[in-house]
Amino acid sequence: MAAIVQALIDVLGEQGVVHGEDVRARAEGWASAESCKALAVVRPSSTHEVSTVLALCHRNKVEVVPYGGGTGLVRGAIAAPGQILLSLDRMQKIESLSAVDRTAVVEAGVTLHALQQAADSADLFFPLDLGARGSATIGGNIATNAGGNRVVRFGMMREMVLGLEAVLPDGSVLSSMNRMIKNNSGYDLKQLLIGSEGTLGVVTRAVLRLREKCPDKSVALISVRTFSDVIHAFRHLDRWLGGSLSAFEVMWREFYDTVTGARAGRPPLPAGAPYYILVESVGGGTAPEQSFETVLAALASEGRIVDAVIAASQAQCDTIWGIRDDVEALMSHGPVFMFDVSLPISRMEAYVGEIRSKLDARWPDNACIVWGHIGDCNLHVWIFVQSDSVAVHAAVSEIVYAPLAEYDGSISAEHGIGEEKRDYLGYTRSAVEIDMMRRLKTVFDPDNIMNPGKILPRGAGAA
Amino acid sequence: MAAIVQALIDVLGEQGVVHGEDVRARAEGWASAESCKALAVVRPSSTHEVSTVLALCHRNKVEVVPYGGGTGLVRGAIAAPGQILLSLDRMQKIESLSAVDRTAVVEAGVTLHALQQAADSADLFFPLDLGARGSATIGGNIATNAGGNRVVRFGMMREMVLGLEAVLPDGSVLSSMNRMIKNNSGYDLKQLLIGSEGTLGVVTRAVLRLREKCPDKSVALISVRTFSDVIHAFRHLDRWLGGSLSAFEVMWREFYDTVTGARAGRPPLPAGAPYYILVESVGGGTAPEQSFETVLAALASEGRIVDAVIAASQAQCDTIWGIRDDVEALMSHGPVFMFDVSLPISRMEAYVGEIRSKLDARWPDNACIVWGHIGDCNLHVWIFVQSDSVAVHAAVSEIVYAPLAEYDGSISAEHGIGEEKRDYLGYTRSAVEIDMMRRLKTVFDPDNIMNPGKILPRGAGAA
Repeated sequence: MAAIVQALIDVLGEQGVVHGEDVRARAEGWASAESCKALAVVRPSSTHEVSTVLALCHRNKVEVVPYGGGTGLVRGAIAAPGQILLSLDRMQKIESLSAVDRTAVVEAGVTLHALQQAADSADLFFPLDLGARGSATIGGNIATNAGGNRVVRFGMMREMVLGLEAVLPDGSVLSSMNRMIKNNSGYDLKQLLIGSEGTLGVVTRAVLRLREKCPDKSVALISVRTFSDVIHAFRHLDRWLGGSLSAFEVMWREFYDTVTGARAGRPPLPAGAPYYILVESVGGGTAPEQSFETVLAALASEGRIVDAVIAASQAQCDTIWGIRDDVEALMSHGPVFMFDVSLPISRMEAYVGEIRSKLDARWPDNACIVWGHIGDCNLHVWIFVQSDSVAVHAAVSEIVYAPLAEYDGSISAEHGIGEEKRDYLGYTRSAVEIDMMRRLKTVFDPDNIMNPGKILPRGAGAA
Repeated sequence: MAAIVQALIDVLGEQGVVHGEDVRARAEGWASAESCKALAVVRPSSTHEVSTVLALCHRNKVEVVPYGGGTGLVRGAIAAPGQILLSLDRMQKIESLSAVDRTAVVEAGVTLHALQQAADSADLFFPLDLGARGSATIGGNIATNAGGNRVVRFGMMREMVLGLEAVLPDGSVLSSMNRMIKNNSGYDLKQLLIGSEGTLGVVTRAVLRLREKCPDKSVALISVRTFSDVIHAFRHLDRWLGGSLSAFEVMWREFYDTVTGARAGRPPLPAGAPYYILVESVGGGTAPEQSFETVLAALASEGRIVDAVIAASQAQCDTIWGIRDDVEALMSHGPVFMFDVSLPISRMEAYVGEIRSKLDARWPDNACIVWGHIGDCNLHVWIFVQSDSVAVHAAVSEIVYAPLAEYDGSISAEHGIGEEKRDYLGYTRSAVEIDMMRRLKTVFDPDNIMNPGKILPRGAGAA
């Protein structure tokens, strides 16, 4: 057994360290079929233990990869041989929840779903939501600045974190457990840790902002003819729903046709329209359904929608959301390359046109399936060219990423960079920006032992 | 003339440099009666010129103080003798405004009011608002992470900045002009510059997020008996107004009585109630006034409000807002010490009680006037003890700041730290946090020439 593993067992006990064959029995991550390659998986049960582990690894120059729910999509929490995987799975306490202050104090290993449930039980609401809610952890949501479906109204995870506590690579504890919406007293250090994908420290606890539970929800599905009608619908609904628009999810024809074609029963709207839009409004007020109908009717009366259906029951809400969430059905097209890009709404149609024509030129039988959180400038693009080879992945990535700078876009909207997009970072961030990232990395992690090789190339710690 | 002043004239021309007696003729800042002490005021007209000025000052180890509208309240933009004041007043271009992307690209010297007007002309809305809108600049709003009246719904300036460009102390240009809501590609560098009060670099341009113009506005004034009724009203309105609540401004009795007592005519509600609440809702939907009335009526029917009036016209809206904004009327109490603190809503009543009893013990004739943005955890506290001496200011500050750590609060909610609160920073930020601020300051500004002595003590650049 490696000396560091024994030293970790000495401080955490046997129950705090997974090693040997037990490590190999774990999957590397949600999206991977490979087994975990870490030297050991450590499972500290407190901030103090995280600090002890990191101080020990720091003294021994052992690299550490923080691990939340393992649901990331960019190989951000994958350990290489010789590295220690630091799992927060024993830190799942919801420490407190205040209905008056509308805050929750939680350990980083709490799952998103557990927090959603706890908030709901207290007649409150935690608005972040995404498909992996049952496994994804709050620590991971913070480390990746998670997005999801309700960003258009409630913002990303960044907007929901009031304070946090993190252990830095040398084991020191940076506690910034602010509980207030407003606190302008010096640099807002938490902002650097949010979205840093575990490369600057390990988030151990957080203070999160909760909202009032919304008494009412309305959902509709709309089909439209042109992308300019999509934009028009977005602006109309955002304005006239007066703050309650909570989702505006656009599915290009190929998405809707594939998913509904794979399901039993008649779809809520006929297939074949160019664009489908899921609209959700959550709010209070009086007669919200009536208001929702009125606003949709005004849109319809302009002749800029093909068809629309308003969910009349929770089951119909679930059906409409089920179509939007059924990305598994897309797998019928074969092996897939998945992308998550962002660009200004005004440039989306041209961008999708450009990558489609390049794909068609090279792979006439490709499928390019597009959907997204348009209000957040976020497109998901899944591309099927009947290959999963590394070389073909690189060629397809080039088609997707290369034009983005020209469109003022970004290679990652909400999934992050991790290891998978690391070599493309320079496509949409400048050399000056990347140099500044390196310099900041060095301040937090001069020995480059904290999740090295994620976001920035491995040698990046030494500026 | 100092050599550096001549060198600055050489690169900017005479119109770009104010020097000699013309500097002395300027006020030091909005809140100061003293004249400007800077060696010169430079007025670059482009990012390139800002870069040239900073590179020149960097080579000559000359200290620079960035200057926006001069409306700050914590001596954050006051220049000391020998320092260069860098004004953005010649960079007032609104470069572009997109209704589809709902973004504005502006130079940092644009005033908040000019941007509000430009957005309005394009049928859009920039939600940040504060009393100094006519002079305060976007660059200053970014540097101080401005707050104001609508944070409860739209967040602080931080939430409205999509991208920015800054010149670093060595003259290099960090351009991070992101235009999207979602962009998780590496560290979000702009977050460090927002709220850094000009100590890390000079913001020269920004991409700002605009909103749809809200078709409707409703305003009411409510009086209640207890602070727990204040909290109850806040939660009720936030929930049932369903996303449209845009201001919840609470005035303690002394505030309302002083301001309305100084005005001609009958006040909208009789004086003498313990708390007055200004409620504003902006939104769309159908029959919003009716909905606003219904939600208020439900609150009234519970018997937890003393009295309420809904503005029936724009003039009545203006009257109610006029009372809230008339802080000048408070000056009738004599010389004032102004504070801007934040703490959790659940702790406010006890905190105000504690500082009041300490003030009463020492200055039986004091006036302690409290009002605030309760939904944002922000209290403004003005204290009058018939003295403006430095020693008394220190004694009063101690009473206000010392208990805050115990209440999980902060010495600055929205005004920032500047020079004025610098020596109190450690009251609510930890030594580890302040050490990390120092280390970050060193990365951006190793020679400590960028607004030295603001936020952190002067020697702080050298960690």
